[in-house]
Amino acid sequence: MKALVHVTLKPGVLDPQGRAIQHALEGLGFQGVEDVRAGRLIELQLADDTSDETIQAMCRQLLANSVIETFRVERA
Amino acid sequence: MKALVHVTLKPGVLDPQGRAIQHALEGLGFQGVEDVRAGRLIELQLADDTSDETIQAMCRQLLANSVIETFRVERA
Repeated sequence: MKALVHVTLKPGVLDPQGRAIQHALEGLGFQGVEDVRAGRLIELQLADDTSDETIQAMCRQLLANSVIETFRVERA
Repeated sequence: MKALVHVTLKPGVLDPQGRAIQHALEGLGFQGVEDVRAGRLIELQLADDTSDETIQAMCRQLLANSVIETFRVERA
């Protein structure tokens, strides 16, 4: 089975990468870019019997930093 | 409006970051991790009248490297 993990910064956490992307888009002439947040997308190919709890544990222990990030798991 | 851009490496492109994550998960004792691919997730807050074509242009010009990456846009 395949699982997609979306890792995003919590609201209020400074995101210099997102800010840099926003400035670069404006520099390229794109208008109306109000905010940009950069996150990570991790595709896991797992054994079919992997439980949701195991995937959540992977996120908590390695894939996301729960102090500043939130994650969402999507089975694909 | 909000748009989510998923940027992932094309199949066949080496992914050292994904490989490192896979090894780290195995090192933590997780079993059945067959493959890991690392990508980026970019959340754009845009003016409501931004067209799909404009978002595609942002991806092609800045957000994704079309030589090695593919992207998918999701309006949220």
